[in-house]
Amino acid sequence: MILYALSLIGVAVFAASGALAAGRKSFDWIGVLVIAVMTAIGGGTLRDLLLDRHAIFWIADTTYLWVVVGAAVATILYGRRQSPPDRALLVADALGLAFFTISGAQIAEQHGHSGSIVIVMGTLTGVAGGVLRDVLCNEVPLLFGPGETLYATAAIAGATTYLVLQTLGTPQTPAALAGMVVVGGLRLAAIFWRLQLPSARVQGDEPR
Amino acid sequence: MILYALSLIGVAVFAASGALAAGRKSFDWIGVLVIAVMTAIGGGTLRDLLLDRHAIFWIADTTYLWVVVGAAVATILYGRRQSPPDRALLVADALGLAFFTISGAQIAEQHGHSGSIVIVMGTLTGVAGGVLRDVLCNEVPLLFGPGETLYATAAIAGATTYLVLQTLGTPQTPAALAGMVVVGGLRLAAIFWRLQLPSARVQGDEPR
Amino acid sequence: MILYALSLIGVAVFAASGALAAGRKSFDWIGVLVIAVMTAIGGGTLRDLLLDRHAIFWIADTTYLWVVVGAAVATILYGRRQSPPDRALLVADALGLAFFTISGAQIAEQHGHSGSIVIVMGTLTGVAGGVLRDVLCNEVPLLFGPGETLYATAAIAGATTYLVLQTLGTPQTPAALAGMVVVGGLRLAAIFWRLQLPSARVQGDEPR
Repeated sequence: MILYALSLIGVAVFAASGALAAGRKSFDWIGVLVIAVMTAIGGGTLRDLLLDRHAIFWIADTTYLWVVVGAAVATILYGRRQSPPDRALLVADALGLAFFTISGAQIAEQHGHSGSIVIVMGTLTGVAGGVLRDVLCNEVPLLFGPGETLYATAAIAGATTYLVLQTLGTPQTPAALAGMVVVGGLRLAAIFWRLQLPSARVQGDEPR
Repeated sequence: MILYALSLIGVAVFAASGALAAGRKSFDWIGVLVIAVMTAIGGGTLRDLLLDRHAIFWIADTTYLWVVVGAAVATILYGRRQSPPDRALLVADALGLAFFTISGAQIAEQHGHSGSIVIVMGTLTGVAGGVLRDVLCNEVPLLFGPGETLYATAAIAGATTYLVLQTLGTPQTPAALAGMVVVGGLRLAAIFWRLQLPSARVQGDEPR
Repeated sequence: MILYALSLIGVAVFAASGALAAGRKSFDWIGVLVIAVMTAIGGGTLRDLLLDRHAIFWIADTTYLWVVVGAAVATILYGRRQSPPDRALLVADALGLAFFTISGAQIAEQHGHSGSIVIVMGTLTGVAGGVLRDVLCNEVPLLFGPGETLYATAAIAGATTYLVLQTLGTPQTPAALAGMVVVGGLRLAAIFWRLQLPSARVQGDEPR
């Protein structure tokens, strides 16, 4: 029940991040709405396709679509009247990343998959919506942009926390909440204090 | 029967739009063919994956592939000898959008989905092939490019028309044809007269 | 058995190509790892989704994931200490293309599909991982970049060779090896000697 509420919040914040990203370009209302929808449902759709879960979550329960549309419209209305708070896009994205990562991990777990699959599926689910948003807006994906830090790292750390806590006997719901806090906290900390993992730069190859 | 013929025309025009887009770059024959195939089958493939319809339409009936290859080759041969008519790409794209939107909506309907899913599925199906074409050609998707107008809007309006007409008692085939006319007409009108929805511009956020 | 070993080598070389491409940008360790994973499993995942093969290969057998992670880490460690050999990325990509094309063709064949589907599926499987890598790194896909030659052509030629040899009575394993040699050989020959198919340039259309 709590997790259902959280998953609705997850699609809402990702919808807001999609609307903010698209709204910074000169798209029309419907274009912004479409990008918001794709951002919000992209990760969960990929998760459901990979795990062969049908009907896809937003086909099975159209509440998600209405929440997405509502969140996108609210974001646009707010954004037209006043400038969104600094880093609003990054924060919305961090929250969406947290919710989707843990929901992807949870559902992989419910399907009886092993720990490594749970972590990979959580990471892919968390990361996919934002990557889709950035590809559709033709920007370097936030995930990979130089200087952007601890994005996939935060997802992996959170999914791992979720798994380890359960192994240690924590019930699922608090473990999920802890995992989300790890993802969102790590990502936000990285944004505000510019935390970085060591770069993995490979020696220069000639350009193609 | 008419709808099967229309779906073949749909893949043919999207194949032509893919071949035109790829042919404007210095790709070789086979590269242009591959982009034409992906453009033409992308939207329907996404539709079938999301609705768990297997075999995917072009796997179940390879006629589609031969039509795509034929249309792409014809486009290239024509395009090498004389310049394609102005806006040929935009017109081919508008027709493909019309056919795929309505076919996506129809198939979602056949699977017993509700109105909101029918509209979303029609829009995704219509939009996906062209977005894939533009991403593969590394251009800003036509859907979202600044100044490009009423793209997803046309798809949504057409799918809605199709639904509403059926609710009012119109048989499926004329409702489908009317829906396609709405999509194609709205999109072409927008191109030639530069119709635009109000922009949904969000106040400037700092660049990332 | 040999083919299982080859498929592990296939994901390893594509992982290396993903790590090399990502490592040339200033991504952190985990970011490079994620791109390597997506590159390595992208083509086979698309194949399994399109053919409705569940569980997806890397979910069914997590050995693939460990091989991918190992190959990516080894590539980064090697690349940090000394410059990778010239054209290392292109060669790794050519080998990955060869393995994935033939494995895609084989699996389509096992599912009883016709020759045209086997060739299309082989080509899509071979091409998808590298396209995903390039889109995620926000580069023009290697497949389509001007001057890049015989990419999809090599995949199509190899899949066709594989099919024709079997029709002529060659057992599956040698036919598969011959197909891989054709893909890899043609692609490498094209890279080193700049072989090219005739361009399919379409007369200029006005820019959008």
